[in-house]
Amino acid sequence: MSTIPRDQWYVAAYSGEIGRELFGRTICGEPVLFWRTEAGALTAHADRCVHRRFPLSQAPSRLVGDTVVCGYHGFTYGADGKCVAVPGQNRVPRTARLAPYPVVEQDSLVWIWIGDPDRADTTRIPRATYLDDPGWTTVRGMEPLAARFSLLVDNLLDLSHETYLHGGYIGTPEVAATPISTEVDEDAGIVHVSRHMDDAECPPFYERSTGLSGRIARWQDIEYTPPCLYKLHSRIAPVGSVPHADGSDPDAFHVEVVYAITPETETSTHDFWMVARDFARDDESVSAFLAEQNRTVVLQDVEALDVLERVIAAEPDGYQELSVNIDTGGLAARRMLARMAAGEEAVLR
Amino acid sequence: MSTIPRDQWYVAAYSGEIGRELFGRTICGEPVLFWRTEAGALTAHADRCVHRRFPLSQAPSRLVGDTVVCGYHGFTYGADGKCVAVPGQNRVPRTARLAPYPVVEQDSLVWIWIGDPDRADTTRIPRATYLDDPGWTTVRGMEPLAARFSLLVDNLLDLSHETYLHGGYIGTPEVAATPISTEVDEDAGIVHVSRHMDDAECPPFYERSTGLSGRIARWQDIEYTPPCLYKLHSRIAPVGSVPHADGSDPDAFHVEVVYAITPETETSTHDFWMVARDFARDDESVSAFLAEQNRTVVLQDVEALDVLERVIAAEPDGYQELSVNIDTGGLAARRMLARMAAGEEAVLR
Amino acid sequence: MSTIPRDQWYVAAYSGEIGRELFGRTICGEPVLFWRTEAGALTAHADRCVHRRFPLSQAPSRLVGDTVVCGYHGFTYGADGKCVAVPGQNRVPRTARLAPYPVVEQDSLVWIWIGDPDRADTTRIPRATYLDDPGWTTVRGMEPLAARFSLLVDNLLDLSHETYLHGGYIGTPEVAATPISTEVDEDAGIVHVSRHMDDAECPPFYERSTGLSGRIARWQDIEYTPPCLYKLHSRIAPVGSVPHADGSDPDAFHVEVVYAITPETETSTHDFWMVARDFARDDESVSAFLAEQNRTVVLQDVEALDVLERVIAAEPDGYQELSVNIDTGGLAARRMLARMAAGEEAVLR
Repeated sequence: MSTIPRDQWYVAAYSGEIGRELFGRTICGEPVLFWRTEAGALTAHADRCVHRRFPLSQAPSRLVGDTVVCGYHGFTYGADGKCVAVPGQNRVPRTARLAPYPVVEQDSLVWIWIGDPDRADTTRIPRATYLDDPGWTTVRGMEPLAARFSLLVDNLLDLSHETYLHGGYIGTPEVAATPISTEVDEDAGIVHVSRHMDDAECPPFYERSTGLSGRIARWQDIEYTPPCLYKLHSRIAPVGSVPHADGSDPDAFHVEVVYAITPETETSTHDFWMVARDFARDDESVSAFLAEQNRTVVLQDVEALDVLERVIAAEPDGYQELSVNIDTGGLAARRMLARMAAGEEAVLR
Repeated sequence: MSTIPRDQWYVAAYSGEIGRELFGRTICGEPVLFWRTEAGALTAHADRCVHRRFPLSQAPSRLVGDTVVCGYHGFTYGADGKCVAVPGQNRVPRTARLAPYPVVEQDSLVWIWIGDPDRADTTRIPRATYLDDPGWTTVRGMEPLAARFSLLVDNLLDLSHETYLHGGYIGTPEVAATPISTEVDEDAGIVHVSRHMDDAECPPFYERSTGLSGRIARWQDIEYTPPCLYKLHSRIAPVGSVPHADGSDPDAFHVEVVYAITPETETSTHDFWMVARDFARDDESVSAFLAEQNRTVVLQDVEALDVLERVIAAEPDGYQELSVNIDTGGLAARRMLARMAAGEEAVLR
Repeated sequence: MSTIPRDQWYVAAYSGEIGRELFGRTICGEPVLFWRTEAGALTAHADRCVHRRFPLSQAPSRLVGDTVVCGYHGFTYGADGKCVAVPGQNRVPRTARLAPYPVVEQDSLVWIWIGDPDRADTTRIPRATYLDDPGWTTVRGMEPLAARFSLLVDNLLDLSHETYLHGGYIGTPEVAATPISTEVDEDAGIVHVSRHMDDAECPPFYERSTGLSGRIARWQDIEYTPPCLYKLHSRIAPVGSVPHADGSDPDAFHVEVVYAITPETETSTHDFWMVARDFARDDESVSAFLAEQNRTVVLQDVEALDVLERVIAAEPDGYQELSVNIDTGGLAARRMLARMAAGEEAVLR
């Protein structure tokens, strides 16, 4: 039985990844073909010719105007997925059509609906507006993970691992030592995990990017909307500084760390990561530094989670983990994911 | 359940591949050992020592005169497969014998019977006499395919793919555009697929080898004898030229393209290819050109079919293809193969 | 069903392999963590953090004094396996404990008990005292084998393969030609296989190390204590020389070849090999020669057995081997191993 929730929105790609080249990516076990029309419209269809299942994203398949020509026998499809030409005959079978996927571009992300298209409700797509806001600067990337998506959910919901796995980058002793508070909003379908460190060491990641050093206030407010979108609202400020009563927070640096956690298969995952900031917005050296640092941190996670996937594959059934307080958020997320995978409408009934 | 027909003849090797070296090849999932005696006789036996199953084709196993000595413990077998010596004792167990395979050398090919040896009828082996005829010149090769043999059957029975997968080599627009005629001879166990292009572009493959250029008559007459032997009778001639009433055809160039499609395992295949011609017979530059071109074309097929095998491995059960007119020959071949695999005597009852 | 006997002692490592670095090795399918305390005491526990199963032998997990700190979230364990610290809270759950393994260091080997710890009887561990005796000099190594352990048992119990697989190293014609005598001591749980060659060619392995040449007396006395410890008492002497009545044997050279055969998984094995001698004890060139030669011989076995494992994986169920006299010892060993794997107490009731 699959642990991947269906009838859900997933991030399939960054908007900028898809243009006038055929682009294939497997999402939740389904191979999907993406491309844009000459007018720039996004298309998403099953990446498999209806004739003999050749992947349309694979050369010598090619884009000709607003049609895709299969590289094996030349079956040709329009932007709506309908077949418009087959070899050796004039009549095109009416059923010759690539299954379309609902897609939405929003906040610089390409969201795809995996499941029954009739149930695709675009209002349920969670937002991260700063990713596409001129007041913010974002660096981003994607790393392939040879591990099930739930291992990345566990990882991100419990940031105490920063101290150990990411020491010297984003981890300091205070992250593991400071207790968290967890809140599950079942109606909104969101898990919140907060850790406010009011007097903590400034890790290199923030020292170099903000110019602060020594002791800082460091707030981590996680907002995870299962299954895909994870947002870490990170606030870095001098010790003692708090947001003003009117909501403004002029002394603090705000970093929005976003992950999109998209299953590729049952045991592999697309690990999309983004780091948005509201300071030093035009400083390319800060952008380059944050991109390189965050990619390093993500690759440390990838290495560890790939190991865990191999451990799981080799272990006997029924192995029991032990959970402690830091796992409260992760366990809440697992419960919501399990309900989603079982087919319940866990979100926004 | 296997999709590989048993009680059938398959091409195991080219005659020239087997000599005074031990030669192992897996045919239809069965590892087979081939070698020739000092007198030149061909032998074929199970490639597995009866003692502890060490492959006899594998060093340090070796040929000593007309015996094979196992490289593990020295069990020694004669050309008839009988064990003639075992270590540590003088008595050789009567049952110590390598299972023999019926083999026939014909038309430069080594044919092997996979199945019940008592049913091996050598008269059923299909012929391709030009492969071993001094009036013809042949180039040949074999490429390993990481795909089930039926994908290669599909591929070769529908040459409309030449236009797309082999454009610039053997494909031109007319191949995909010209309808085919298909005829199934159930009694002879042969599928015929014909495509006669009377005014077509001359592809590089034929332009360079025949010296013709511009528009040509190009006839493709496929004769497939399931499961293994595929023959493409290719006729290239100036536009308007037809064979004479007496059967002679002096203005045309004849190329016999032969494939032997031999399953290695359920999901891998030996893709033997041969190109015989009745012109420029002593022109080594034409031989080198055709060998290089056809190998390139075969490798294009191999790349595409390896992709299809991976697509099939990843897709859910019950996936349905869509077939059109060009598939008539391939579908007929599939039906014959399915009957053969199910154990019916589909051929030459 | 596993063919690996449980409730048995296995060699996990050489004593010298384990020190103040975390050391992980999978034994009988179980990942085990080894390290020594600052006082030098050996520890062995399940190599998997109780929290989220991260391997404790894997960086960035690390040894801090006499504790192990998990590289993922910092769970910290003492030398007794008990968890002493978890992140984000002061209370450590009482059940947070790494499962310990009974271990014994003896004869330079680290023995581990796989199975029910309550049944671990250290008196049942077989001895090889010369491995840790100042009167002997030992060279040793370990090669990973991608084959089930029983293939190595077969290999070592029937040395007639030396003639064929190890010709030019330790094999001569007499090994395969000379009959063996086999004796099974069910009470002691030992299989004995003897081959006394009284007039045999001296193989390079012994010619170079002993200085003897031409014809020799060569005795091979195997003593195998299933499942793990294999000892070959090898006696090399001038032709005609026999041990004296008082047990002394001054004209002979004695080599004790020891293998520890430890399953890593169902289809892979740790192949520990040791060669101890009572002559030329301080001659480093003899040590280097024997180490290089024996490693070469082991790698010849590894190559052959890896092939056999692949043969077994590809063959249909129910394949039957043929056994002859040389297999008597191997078949006796198989019967004892089968009883052990089935859970009977085959040894020292």
